[in-house]
Amino acid sequence: MGFLDGVKVVDFTHAYAGPFCSLFLADYGAEVIKIERVDGGDQARTWGPFKNDYSAYYASFNRGKKSITLDIKSKEGQKIIYDLIKDADIVCSNFKAGTLEKYGVGYEQMKQVKPDIIYATISGFGTKGELSKYPAYDNVIQAMSGIMDVNGFADKGPTKIGPAIGDSYTGLLLLLGLMIAFHHRQKTGKGQQIDVTMLGALFGLLEYPVLEYANNGKVISRSGNASHYVAPSDVYQTKDDYIAITVKDDSQWKTFCSILGLPDTEEYAINAQRLDNQAELKILIEEKLKDYTSKEAEALFDGSSIAVSSVMGIAESLENPQLLARDMVIEVEDPVMGPVKLVGNPIHLSENKPVTNIPSPTLGEHTDAILQQLGYTEEKISALKEAKVI
Amino acid sequence: MGFLDGVKVVDFTHAYAGPFCSLFLADYGAEVIKIERVDGGDQARTWGPFKNDYSAYYASFNRGKKSITLDIKSKEGQKIIYDLIKDADIVCSNFKAGTLEKYGVGYEQMKQVKPDIIYATISGFGTKGELSKYPAYDNVIQAMSGIMDVNGFADKGPTKIGPAIGDSYTGLLLLLGLMIAFHHRQKTGKGQQIDVTMLGALFGLLEYPVLEYANNGKVISRSGNASHYVAPSDVYQTKDDYIAITVKDDSQWKTFCSILGLPDTEEYAINAQRLDNQAELKILIEEKLKDYTSKEAEALFDGSSIAVSSVMGIAESLENPQLLARDMVIEVEDPVMGPVKLVGNPIHLSENKPVTNIPSPTLGEHTDAILQQLGYTEEKISALKEAKVI
Repeated sequence: MGFLDGVKVVDFTHAYAGPFCSLFLADYGAEVIKIERVDGGDQARTWGPFKNDYSAYYASFNRGKKSITLDIKSKEGQKIIYDLIKDADIVCSNFKAGTLEKYGVGYEQMKQVKPDIIYATISGFGTKGELSKYPAYDNVIQAMSGIMDVNGFADKGPTKIGPAIGDSYTGLLLLLGLMIAFHHRQKTGKGQQIDVTMLGALFGLLEYPVLEYANNGKVISRSGNASHYVAPSDVYQTKDDYIAITVKDDSQWKTFCSILGLPDTEEYAINAQRLDNQAELKILIEEKLKDYTSKEAEALFDGSSIAVSSVMGIAESLENPQLLARDMVIEVEDPVMGPVKLVGNPIHLSENKPVTNIPSPTLGEHTDAILQQLGYTEEKISALKEAKVI
Repeated sequence: MGFLDGVKVVDFTHAYAGPFCSLFLADYGAEVIKIERVDGGDQARTWGPFKNDYSAYYASFNRGKKSITLDIKSKEGQKIIYDLIKDADIVCSNFKAGTLEKYGVGYEQMKQVKPDIIYATISGFGTKGELSKYPAYDNVIQAMSGIMDVNGFADKGPTKIGPAIGDSYTGLLLLLGLMIAFHHRQKTGKGQQIDVTMLGALFGLLEYPVLEYANNGKVISRSGNASHYVAPSDVYQTKDDYIAITVKDDSQWKTFCSILGLPDTEEYAINAQRLDNQAELKILIEEKLKDYTSKEAEALFDGSSIAVSSVMGIAESLENPQLLARDMVIEVEDPVMGPVKLVGNPIHLSENKPVTNIPSPTLGEHTDAILQQLGYTEEKISALKEAKVI
């Protein structure tokens, strides 16, 4: 029994941010009805990686959902949406602000039909203000938020965070908003609107650089792998590769010196001294580490309280027994792709297990069934297909 | 009225990951009682930035909480914890797995006293498995998860993501688990255990590199600011600085060429062609952009559907009216620091406003009041202080 069993979601999301949110709703048992364009559906269906010419990307973020195609620009398409809304609980979208309103299915409009609907939107900049009309994309939001300026090395330009966390992190914030709103509705019977922005989400992750500038006027920019506050905390070259190490205080520093055979001199006894001499320290440390492979270096710290890890590529990470034991790599039997490996759900609850083995829908797979449930006759359905409304 | 009014949280979290989670609980009205070490409290109290020698970092992630000091290693400290647990709803922690068990306040032990307790822990690697005994730190988890390998430029080494998202993102996942568990308890009366790992959280953000390798055996490593699937989507140098641009499809490419005055030749008409020739394209584009400042280049795309933004530093980001209008920078009147600027709550709900104006507690600020509420006499409290239990 999923804890969202019986909850119906009308899901206008596409690409990454929105689907990442509604994926969790599906995992916990909600009926997620994904509205897709008649002509091709969600753009993520064209995004790699592919297996049997089908998008594993789409499959990963849309497993467990249902797909109905409809033309949101047509009056009849909009009527279907209202038919769906009548007994829905949640609406999600990550269109540019104003898009759903333009098609007559905005929050104010939907509220007329379903007063307690929970209406949740992700956008780049929010529903109000000058920027709300602009298109957003993960790298553009990263640039504007300031996060690109604090990622990467000082001697390189601003650096995009590899994975699109402007999408994923914002998706998770929307999900959190949904959980709060859902709880509020159960308590009070009232629906509400949730408006989460990619810009606000990434800004909210900046931590000390924003606090330092806002309060002390001090600019902190990117510093590569080195910490601004703790030393040594960096990534070091070894005989064969790289290793990440953090020595979190003066007591660990003594341990670190004795393990690596570094002289435990007075000039580096205090964290502030080590911070002031990071470049020299790095040379000393790498001089010692060049005698070991990353794995050998890792083993040196076994049993100490110092946090270390060799830097792993995706291939190695995928074999980590700790991740596999936690079902972070799942195999789903897909009707098009056959067995496909997807990413699991990282939240482990002892009482609420996610359902992760239902494949993603083919485009419009559930159109007929959903419309039949809504009372549409076969003739009507055929006519709508003919007219390319569905 | 916060939606968590009346909910009591016994909060063992410290540093960043855990406090980032319980911050949201406080925002929505829960009574968050933070357990701190008698000798110095949460290590984040020693982390910059500082204002009047007080940590703005601590203040930002602990506003709205209460602080009680106690020695968890002492029997009497453990008794206070059990007194607190008796009418608590939620316990949070981000100690290394096994730490609370060692002190007699693990889940199985607490369940004896409070069967419906929700017991939520963040750790690096989880409560089971070979790695569970190892210490974790954001940069080490980034190294192990594979995310460091897909961040940064190909000609530089693996690159840590600037902000500690191994902490913040995992904190948010724990919060989501808490919302699910809280809902489950309201429905069934049952508590449960939530176990979220930094390793699993970051692995869950890897998206296409993990899907590509797991399904096709293809290794995707870091590619700087360029997208692996869409071109042009990159960061470009302008006359004075940088600009991020994403041209998401062939139709936008035509618009892009006409705006920048690039020849719309057949060789670059299709996304796949542009992807294959990214280096040449970048030269062509930067040749055009060198005549404009980043702000001027941004303005060129005004009214088009192409997503662009100049790359902003923290100072500029902090002045973005869109962020300010959404209360992402808040000013809190702090008894020690005076007015201090902190980071707001990015989730905007029309019915559930977060409370963000309560300052963080000084160390042990609420020790006496909380113990008095639990029925401890003044004599007893003095004796506990004498014995350094509180």
